[in-house]
Amino acid sequence: MQGLSFKKTLTLRKNLPLPSAPGEARIRVSLAGICSTDLEIAKGYMGFHSILGHEFVGVVEAAPDQAWIGKRVVGEINAACGGCCFCVRGMRNHCSQRTVLGILGRDGSFAEQLSLPIQNLHLVPENLTDEEAVFTEPLAAAFRITEQLATRPEERVTLLGDGKLGLLIAQVLKDRCRLVVVGRYPERNKTLEQWGIQSLSPDQTIPLQHLSDIVIDATGSPKGFDLAQQLVRPQGTIVLKTTCAGRPKVDLAKVVIDEVTVVGSRCGPFAPALEALSRKKVDVRPLITEVFPLKRGKEAFRKAAERGTLKVLLRP
Amino acid sequence: MQGLSFKKTLTLRKNLPLPSAPGEARIRVSLAGICSTDLEIAKGYMGFHSILGHEFVGVVEAAPDQAWIGKRVVGEINAACGGCCFCVRGMRNHCSQRTVLGILGRDGSFAEQLSLPIQNLHLVPENLTDEEAVFTEPLAAAFRITEQLATRPEERVTLLGDGKLGLLIAQVLKDRCRLVVVGRYPERNKTLEQWGIQSLSPDQTIPLQHLSDIVIDATGSPKGFDLAQQLVRPQGTIVLKTTCAGRPKVDLAKVVIDEVTVVGSRCGPFAPALEALSRKKVDVRPLITEVFPLKRGKEAFRKAAERGTLKVLLRP
Repeated sequence: MQGLSFKKTLTLRKNLPLPSAPGEARIRVSLAGICSTDLEIAKGYMGFHSILGHEFVGVVEAAPDQAWIGKRVVGEINAACGGCCFCVRGMRNHCSQRTVLGILGRDGSFAEQLSLPIQNLHLVPENLTDEEAVFTEPLAAAFRITEQLATRPEERVTLLGDGKLGLLIAQVLKDRCRLVVVGRYPERNKTLEQWGIQSLSPDQTIPLQHLSDIVIDATGSPKGFDLAQQLVRPQGTIVLKTTCAGRPKVDLAKVVIDEVTVVGSRCGPFAPALEALSRKKVDVRPLITEVFPLKRGKEAFRKAAERGTLKVLLRP
Repeated sequence: MQGLSFKKTLTLRKNLPLPSAPGEARIRVSLAGICSTDLEIAKGYMGFHSILGHEFVGVVEAAPDQAWIGKRVVGEINAACGGCCFCVRGMRNHCSQRTVLGILGRDGSFAEQLSLPIQNLHLVPENLTDEEAVFTEPLAAAFRITEQLATRPEERVTLLGDGKLGLLIAQVLKDRCRLVVVGRYPERNKTLEQWGIQSLSPDQTIPLQHLSDIVIDATGSPKGFDLAQQLVRPQGTIVLKTTCAGRPKVDLAKVVIDEVTVVGSRCGPFAPALEALSRKKVDVRPLITEVFPLKRGKEAFRKAAERGTLKVLLRP
């Protein structure tokens, strides 16, 4: 089979063996999405050197349990051991022995087929297109915030970033709090407005300094944290969604002086994401910039890295 | 009166006018303590240029309410406006217009007398010596952690730092969780052992990596956060007590990947601190390195900055 692999450079590899692992399902990928994490990995982040990609929708080709064969599925990306001290406490996404699809020790979704444990799979509701279902994983990451923080309707929440993750988080949070999105792209204001969400540019935020109960950094930039610190109120909360390679310089003393709480937030629950997509509570169609065939994967990565691009999808 | 002032250099100033402010009490300082924050300010942190010091015990000399005159008191260091959006929400320590004793816009305690609003004052129980009462402010900062986190007896808490703040935090937390102190000073192990507290050196912590539910950074060093990240478990909590000037380089991506919560922690409640001192639940005597007369204040600062020094007190 074909797969888009990273080792020093991005390469479309052919004649790869079909993935297989005992007790796992083999899934034919219908559609896969490029995430900012993939772009970071292709710069060397995580030191991962194999087939990239962790967002996908596909159809089960082989599985230990015959009932799964032919089913359309999406899959959670962390494969856990089930026995370590974190798995036993229900923290499977933090399993100390975990592999992570296309990120850590496990070939990813930018290939014709992939392998995942059955317990990672979720059936896709029939009323979803593949183009919608492929957003389940990043939308689950947006829902993770609702598991970590109980936002109240009167709370002022500022979301930094109107990129592909930001626009998902915005839709998840818009009815749960007083939300303002701070984004770099004026052309996205109209979309946000249609969703009933107020938006500002970064240079319009000065009057809001120290007034947000919660600030969510989904900028994907190491500078996001500085702006978050300017906007959050004393004893407020900053949710960090941004993962960047390197060690940015951070004003830790300000965290102490303002008694801010910083919450790291990574992977989230698939069930509410699939339900929100199925009930059309979240609209992902404006987020798709372009669909490329897998064999044009390198070109797709270049497009995904361009300023102003939202989601780029790969079709094997 | 005399006062120890910082402006480019530390200077003992004489013939200063007595402090006075409408509605405030004037207090004759009996004893004042040098804190690491004072050492940082004397290096330029906060840009404060006036009389230093925020830890003290003293006797009220003048007050709008006669009942306070002659009383022995300690005082909360944040003087709030009472009217801003933070004061109205009960967050007086985060008042946007606040002055802070010896730190921000208000002369401090390294002087013969100081001025504070009456509502900042707390009576000192009769069974406390001045040498004990002068620890109320830093002990309150230790108790702040118990307001922010509900530690459970089975939780593993690692405290980084066996300095003067660390040794107070250790005593506050020892009966509330499974506490281990990581310290640089082998000679303090015996004191900790007498208090029933386990202690380790930093190079003994490798087997504990990613196993602490809570890590408290009271190292006073920008490197403390890195060690805290190594020791905290996924979805665990790091409490930041350290305030350093500058912007250390921080692995923010690790906060996201491990979904760690970082909680900044500053000033705390005086009532439980005074009660703990009065009931002899906290022993501050082993923490006093030396008492200097105020006129030898510069020498006292040099002593306070020496490796291995704990609390240095100033007697005006």
